[in-house]
Amino acid sequence: MELFGLKVFALGGFGEIVAGDDLGELICEAAQSRLIDGDIVAVTSKIVSKAEGRTVLAVDREQAITDETVRVVAARAHPGGFTRIVENRQGLVMAAAGVDTSNAPEGVVLLLPVDPDASARAICAALRERTGLRLGVLVTDTAGRPWREGQTDIAIGAAGLAVLDDLRGTADVSGRRLDVTVAAVADEIAGAADLVKGKTSGNPVAVVRGLGRLVAELDAAGARALQRPSATDMFRLGTAEAHAEGYTEGYIAGFAAGRAAAALG
Amino acid sequence: MELFGLKVFALGGFGEIVAGDDLGELICEAAQSRLIDGDIVAVTSKIVSKAEGRTVLAVDREQAITDETVRVVAARAHPGGFTRIVENRQGLVMAAAGVDTSNAPEGVVLLLPVDPDASARAICAALRERTGLRLGVLVTDTAGRPWREGQTDIAIGAAGLAVLDDLRGTADVSGRRLDVTVAAVADEIAGAADLVKGKTSGNPVAVVRGLGRLVAELDAAGARALQRPSATDMFRLGTAEAHAEGYTEGYIAGFAAGRAAAALG
Repeated sequence: MELFGLKVFALGGFGEIVAGDDLGELICEAAQSRLIDGDIVAVTSKIVSKAEGRTVLAVDREQAITDETVRVVAARAHPGGFTRIVENRQGLVMAAAGVDTSNAPEGVVLLLPVDPDASARAICAALRERTGLRLGVLVTDTAGRPWREGQTDIAIGAAGLAVLDDLRGTADVSGRRLDVTVAAVADEIAGAADLVKGKTSGNPVAVVRGLGRLVAELDAAGARALQRPSATDMFRLGTAEAHAEGYTEGYIAGFAAGRAAAALG
Repeated sequence: MELFGLKVFALGGFGEIVAGDDLGELICEAAQSRLIDGDIVAVTSKIVSKAEGRTVLAVDREQAITDETVRVVAARAHPGGFTRIVENRQGLVMAAAGVDTSNAPEGVVLLLPVDPDASARAICAALRERTGLRLGVLVTDTAGRPWREGQTDIAIGAAGLAVLDDLRGTADVSGRRLDVTVAAVADEIAGAADLVKGKTSGNPVAVVRGLGRLVAELDAAGARALQRPSATDMFRLGTAEAHAEGYTEGYIAGFAAGRAAAALG
């Protein structure tokens, strides 16, 4: 018995995106009226950055990473260079602040869109207006994870769909309450889209069909809702960085205590 | 132009799985010859645990978590209780060591399969033998992530497919080399499968079609290859835990230095 179905397919034929391009129009052209109600359109952040002119010269890459950084989470030197994992202006914790060389024109690097939720909303509004369909839009990017090898695509921008599927309070098949499960569906959709887009194939957009239940109003909470505030994050700093911070504080307290103990004794 | 396509559908009709059930046989029955060459079958770890008899009494839950723990990564008390994020016997970093109450029979909790890669291999071998098809199998579970709200499904066991798609050295559309991208495709497939299985619907198996290029020999590296060794992990400890470790070390060093300074001065 086939119960639920999902179909994911890539849209190609975009050519090189340049600053000022209208992505809503280009996606509609690429889709050629193959979109249907309830579809979720996953757009690689690279083409959003290009359309928004978010490029800097490759020689300025390190400065660009510094400029995009709100807070350094962890940093490590390695034979190939220096990795900085930071929280960026968008609130995302990413290596190199999300500044990327791959799929960028020669001599430049791409910064992430300034406000990926706003980018998603603009594309979603344009697609909805042109097609008359209830559609959702994700802006996706590739990110590493602690504890796991390899990268997965995640949703950095979203409009017109529920990014979290809150199952708390619902019952499992035994009628027992699911207490802690909030499914990060937007990230799972971004990952599914990556499986068909590929990183080397030049297909920057994918359509995910079969999740109309998640499609919502245009101004539904965006992908920002997927960001855990650093204050409540148990991994807000790298292990070495937190250790060093603790060491310094401990040293100062220990030094004072040691001096006081010597004075007493 | 439609370039790549993925189809994901859930298999239902499993009923309650009990210790000793032959999952290969049950999945074949549920699929009713709808599997084709290159399909990847994603099996929720819950039913693997049940078939393998990996249950303990719910009253022994805390002890079970302790028993499954190899290393505590982070722990925090909160109003609802106490969360332990640990590296478990399987090498996975998970809350409560992956011990789960949801979808477990009344009065018991489920432990993860002892060796999820071996479980996947056994199911994959059975499915391949029964169908004569080249299939891949994932054992999936739900996990939280640092920095991101919500949980996604990941691959904790794998057989018969490439779990990582190594794109390093390949070229992007501009002909530039992709330097750091290794796609964790098994995790993306697990997430896609979760979108159709759902957590409350009682559909513990999904079929992912269209990724035959990833299907490989039965003994290809399993999901263990997705685990970053803690020695090279920049987030091997929670921030508070690393800070406390550093504080203690710093205090001891500072105390000695303070006493020595007092003796000199």
